[in-house]
Amino acid sequence: MENVKVIVWGLGAMGGGMARMILQKKGMEIVGAIASRQEKAGKDLGEVLNLGSKVGVTVTAESEKALKEDADIVLVATSSFTREIFPQIKMAIESGKNVITIAEEMAYPAYREPDIAREIDKLAKDHNVTVLGTGINPGFVLDTLIIALSGVCMDIKKITARRINDLSPFGTTVMRTQGVGTTVEEFHRGLEEGTIVGHIGFPESISLISEALGLEIDEIKQIREPIVSKVYRETPYAKVQPGMVAGCKHIGIGLRKGEPVIVLEHPQQIRPELENVETGDYIEIEGTPNINLAIKPEIPGGIGTIAIAVNMIPKVIEAKPGLVTMKDLPVPAAIMGDVRKLLKDGGENA
Amino acid sequence: MENVKVIVWGLGAMGGGMARMILQKKGMEIVGAIASRQEKAGKDLGEVLNLGSKVGVTVTAESEKALKEDADIVLVATSSFTREIFPQIKMAIESGKNVITIAEEMAYPAYREPDIAREIDKLAKDHNVTVLGTGINPGFVLDTLIIALSGVCMDIKKITARRINDLSPFGTTVMRTQGVGTTVEEFHRGLEEGTIVGHIGFPESISLISEALGLEIDEIKQIREPIVSKVYRETPYAKVQPGMVAGCKHIGIGLRKGEPVIVLEHPQQIRPELENVETGDYIEIEGTPNINLAIKPEIPGGIGTIAIAVNMIPKVIEAKPGLVTMKDLPVPAAIMGDVRKLLKDGGENA
Repeated sequence: MENVKVIVWGLGAMGGGMARMILQKKGMEIVGAIASRQEKAGKDLGEVLNLGSKVGVTVTAESEKALKEDADIVLVATSSFTREIFPQIKMAIESGKNVITIAEEMAYPAYREPDIAREIDKLAKDHNVTVLGTGINPGFVLDTLIIALSGVCMDIKKITARRINDLSPFGTTVMRTQGVGTTVEEFHRGLEEGTIVGHIGFPESISLISEALGLEIDEIKQIREPIVSKVYRETPYAKVQPGMVAGCKHIGIGLRKGEPVIVLEHPQQIRPELENVETGDYIEIEGTPNINLAIKPEIPGGIGTIAIAVNMIPKVIEAKPGLVTMKDLPVPAAIMGDVRKLLKDGGENA
Repeated sequence: MENVKVIVWGLGAMGGGMARMILQKKGMEIVGAIASRQEKAGKDLGEVLNLGSKVGVTVTAESEKALKEDADIVLVATSSFTREIFPQIKMAIESGKNVITIAEEMAYPAYREPDIAREIDKLAKDHNVTVLGTGINPGFVLDTLIIALSGVCMDIKKITARRINDLSPFGTTVMRTQGVGTTVEEFHRGLEEGTIVGHIGFPESISLISEALGLEIDEIKQIREPIVSKVYRETPYAKVQPGMVAGCKHIGIGLRKGEPVIVLEHPQQIRPELENVETGDYIEIEGTPNINLAIKPEIPGGIGTIAIAVNMIPKVIEAKPGLVTMKDLPVPAAIMGDVRKLLKDGGENA
């Protein structure tokens, strides 16, 4: 059986990380690498990834040409938004390849872009390929993991989950979009002007859970609040005086007939430990039975997103054609052996 | 669209619980109830379940006759062992119905009964139906949940998981099979004679994880140790003096080339709190990244098994024909709305 052939589109921190991970795996190979930034084009992928050795794949900025290569799947890591990424997904589908993207909105594109979602579904079915949006959040911690856990419940009254993380390792872009280092006034103005955005993915996660369980959520609200620091906090990219903003507490609420049924919280800040905030992923299901889950510390966002995007490759290749979401596919699983053995009746029991 | 029609086979604590749960759900109905015990036959299901009202289904002990009824799926809750339950599964398949069973060995029947597993797979394919074994453990906590969590890992060195529970609510059968109230000497004799068995399901869970991740486990070991009590422990069904056995610490180890890669521990005892043992489900993945998950208290076994068996109904109905395991199906999910909406492109995004 031939190797699973992958084209990586986008070679930033995420796409580059996926390429590195794929190069470590048996039974998979990278046959194309598309960079958004022209200065990476023409170089060997190994050089762009700082591997210290050549991979034998020349990075290109010419996506159309790259997609002529025979491949099983394209991993797209170029944008957060369905509308922005749609031309790339369309091109990949029309070249006859399955697609996995980490664009946050693509975890459940029907929420913000129902027309584009329908078009992707139709295109994918016409070309007999599958398209999936995934990632750590949305894609796993605040949706897929909650859905999986709900499977042991006879009844559910309310789901509350929190992902408390530490923004300290991130750079200036994240500091700006989360409002780190602003005054409370600047924070609120940033929200209004759209420069401070908080987390992208709550309506997607809530829609995914609602649809998987049949919860019939009919309204989604979002609240963004400044995390006002009581102490001085500092990272290489931000300084926060007491009384200033250390991050954004973003809350997504899914309501049914006015009652909150799904509450997802994602406070993101620098140096949370300075105010004794313990990072972690927490899920609480009120129901029969009650379930209290904690993952401490939180699953790291970068590594987790890279890993789940690559690990879903065999599931997407084997899935029925069309636009799918994480709830439609088999439970995610790390690829530890030869990926080809995980495909098509590779298991003894299949 | 018609209701999903279910036949429940086995009306003990588990089968009876499933029947009760199904009666609460929209879009599902019970069209047959088969009791193993003759004294339940002829009564209305509502009476056998102590519901205080009639259901309109007469419990029968004549399985062949009951299976003539038109139904989508049969839930089988009669035995823990593939060999014992095989004739029932065969009969259900041959009547053209999908099957979900909570028989522990059926979580991965190829481990202990490869020939029967192949025969079930062939029969199911011939009759265009799907057969699944599930439950809380094996079936979820020490396998499916671990597999799902591994999906965010780039690499895994070792998986260690513990399910620490409390046997206090259980009756004499469980006390006997776990060795509660024996002396250490009696415990070891009971293990040898097969009267004390500990947990059923470790090789199944380990095989499931190994196959899902491609871990290539080549040896499975099991260790059963007495939990010797330091204090006096008592329940309505057992009295344990200090120095006597309060339960069984059962460990399953999956090795690859002699190295332990999967270690699953399931210490089961009465009154664990008397020695400050906190019950819970714990999963620790050593890898990239490390993951530490805790569910406290543990997901209750009885409710969890009932719930997951019923919640997997729509997934099994929609699955491809054959014998499948939890790793082959979409992530489990609680059924909260009309189950028919969860079927066939019922979701907006499907």
